[in-house]
Amino acid sequence: MKALTATEAVAAIEAGTLTAEAHVRQCLDRIAEREPVVKAWAHLDPELALAQAKAADAASAGVLRGIPLGVKDIIDTHDMPTGHNSPIFAGTQSFGDAACIALSRDANAVIMGKTVTTEFANRHPGPTTNPHNAAHTPGGSSSGSAAAVADGHVPLAFGTQTGGSVIRPAAYCGVVGYKPSFGEFSRVGIKMQCHSLDTLGLMARTLDDIALLRAVVLALPPVPVRRDGATPRIGFCRTPIWDDAEADTRELLERTASSLAATGATVVDVSFAPPFHGILEDHAAIMGFESTRNYADERLRNPDKVSAELMDGLTRGLDVPLERYVAAQRKAAAFKAHVDSLFDELDVLLCPSAPGEAPKGIEFTGDPRFNSIWTLAGTPCVTLPAGTGDMGLPLGVQLVGCRYEDDKLLSTAAWVAARL
Amino acid sequence: MKALTATEAVAAIEAGTLTAEAHVRQCLDRIAEREPVVKAWAHLDPELALAQAKAADAASAGVLRGIPLGVKDIIDTHDMPTGHNSPIFAGTQSFGDAACIALSRDANAVIMGKTVTTEFANRHPGPTTNPHNAAHTPGGSSSGSAAAVADGHVPLAFGTQTGGSVIRPAAYCGVVGYKPSFGEFSRVGIKMQCHSLDTLGLMARTLDDIALLRAVVLALPPVPVRRDGATPRIGFCRTPIWDDAEADTRELLERTASSLAATGATVVDVSFAPPFHGILEDHAAIMGFESTRNYADERLRNPDKVSAELMDGLTRGLDVPLERYVAAQRKAAAFKAHVDSLFDELDVLLCPSAPGEAPKGIEFTGDPRFNSIWTLAGTPCVTLPAGTGDMGLPLGVQLVGCRYEDDKLLSTAAWVAARL
Repeated sequence: MKALTATEAVAAIEAGTLTAEAHVRQCLDRIAEREPVVKAWAHLDPELALAQAKAADAASAGVLRGIPLGVKDIIDTHDMPTGHNSPIFAGTQSFGDAACIALSRDANAVIMGKTVTTEFANRHPGPTTNPHNAAHTPGGSSSGSAAAVADGHVPLAFGTQTGGSVIRPAAYCGVVGYKPSFGEFSRVGIKMQCHSLDTLGLMARTLDDIALLRAVVLALPPVPVRRDGATPRIGFCRTPIWDDAEADTRELLERTASSLAATGATVVDVSFAPPFHGILEDHAAIMGFESTRNYADERLRNPDKVSAELMDGLTRGLDVPLERYVAAQRKAAAFKAHVDSLFDELDVLLCPSAPGEAPKGIEFTGDPRFNSIWTLAGTPCVTLPAGTGDMGLPLGVQLVGCRYEDDKLLSTAAWVAARL
Repeated sequence: MKALTATEAVAAIEAGTLTAEAHVRQCLDRIAEREPVVKAWAHLDPELALAQAKAADAASAGVLRGIPLGVKDIIDTHDMPTGHNSPIFAGTQSFGDAACIALSRDANAVIMGKTVTTEFANRHPGPTTNPHNAAHTPGGSSSGSAAAVADGHVPLAFGTQTGGSVIRPAAYCGVVGYKPSFGEFSRVGIKMQCHSLDTLGLMARTLDDIALLRAVVLALPPVPVRRDGATPRIGFCRTPIWDDAEADTRELLERTASSLAATGATVVDVSFAPPFHGILEDHAAIMGFESTRNYADERLRNPDKVSAELMDGLTRGLDVPLERYVAAQRKAAAFKAHVDSLFDELDVLLCPSAPGEAPKGIEFTGDPRFNSIWTLAGTPCVTLPAGTGDMGLPLGVQLVGCRYEDDKLLSTAAWVAARL
């Protein structure tokens, strides 16, 4: 049986043809079948999930009506452990819920369990495999969320992005990933890596589901994805690292740009102004300076329980001078204004979601740089599944919207998705 | 005996004429004497403080050499409860240390205890009184930190500012308060109210102590406060709410501007451009929108344990439309650029630290608006003690520096302080 989207399940529950309990049981069955291979879950308590589903059925209300939701394991839940994929936090349980969890519960979501993250949403990987081919990474750091949504364990999941931790794994696993405009979603109860970059993001199998969960996290009424909008003006932005994309990805993007133009969209080439060609170095400086201080407690009180990979990054972060950090912050502010200005004449930017398909092996979760650019810009981003690459694994195309115009981005993405 | 500053105590400890243990005992004696009236401490464990002091004496190292530090009770400590002045959190203890605590311990500070905060660093007050007159508020929300530093309980303390929660209580209590440039200090482990505004700040009795603790929190070598700088160019910024300041404060500022000009400083009047005259409304929109979502867990799971005062504010926050929030964020970005531009020709801005002396009674912690402006601007700010007002309570003058030029602000403030 095909897994239902959240929107489909909500409609069926509201129509009385499905109960939240039955739907959650279907999802739990799918997990039981697939988890030995996919390994998407850091914590799963079927009884607790079913109890929530029964309560949602009894309440017979809420935007999410008992729909199950996967939660990246750096996001606090008062009734489940939050492990951060770190021996430091193994088995610890937070006192409260993260704000996004509290708001989801208020909409009668079922908090299904905690999905595998890389260590502290950084690089050191967890055990999750790509559901399309277990010999490949699902991407990271929101590895389990992407794999669980792709594999039909849950229709919705939370991830977070500091570099490319939502859009990249979503693209690798062939689902829709969404990073909102910086600042709109609360980060309370989410382990902080870089306060200037960290963004809560969403994963689902459709744009309509993304819009639904966005409304829940904003504590606002859902804004339906419009499909009657004007033909969009699209900027094809190869970014300064275009040459680092693999051939199949470059071809996908060129083909997509051409075919969208053929369907009537305005498509123009867009480049960053020269001062911003090295913007990824500024992202790295900010991430290094902030993360080594933000992880001070782990680094100083439990150095033996931090992976060599992370400790190396934190140590390098200490080498970023304050002056370099400040210069990067000033450059980032100018970059945000520059990217904003690109939207004076455009509705959306088109660029790769990742350099290519999910790399082989699960040790390396892939290159985040096609996403880090936009995390720094603070723009809303969506990745849409767009076929497969040379190895038969999913490829995505990334659409970037103007800051604070997230609803418009989702509607423009729907226009594009209908023509992919 | 006059209480030592941190700089004095470090020097004496390094010279071998004082031990950290003896110094901490002096501070504990002072607390024992005064706490029944001042009520600055939410949690104090003298044995734990002395154990830390002995360890610091044994280590004989670190920038802070066993100097005791007061910690606002919304900042996590792994070995003491963090109560947030809320029945929701009474007696709860965090798993880890806040980053600023971990970095302070790394410098061999003694974490003396937790200082009284208003409920969640919002408005609902704690029991702390003004050490200069117990019938008056010490200000808030960092009430206990300001009172403890002013009254000689500790030479250093952490506070936080979302509106005016560091600069105002510091001014009311007659100490030096400092809010750094937004983004430089880690906020990990500090209860989040508004991610666009919350700033960790410092309180001490001298600028040298501020510079010392700033270095510790940045994990960088101390930058001494320079006293050999050029005569500063000062902008006298009355702000759009000048008429709301009390007469003695307006007179203090006018007199200060005149006397600094008389000592050779360039002093010019500075005003915000007209689009920013209502900037406080944008601060309020951002604070309302963010705080009601950031406190979702408290508001939704424990509504009966949230004060009526806070719940009222959070409910009003839900009325701020997303569009209003976005407009406020765009205005804030333009305001930051505008304030930055004021420093093309100036070194520092001079303005009130608060509308006047500490109000009578402890129910109302005072008006934060002279600070909220600069919290939104992201600029570094210092308040310096500057005599007393009509009721005999401390008044302060606030100096505002260019974003990311905190060291320069502290040195300019020293120039000003020498002439007050």
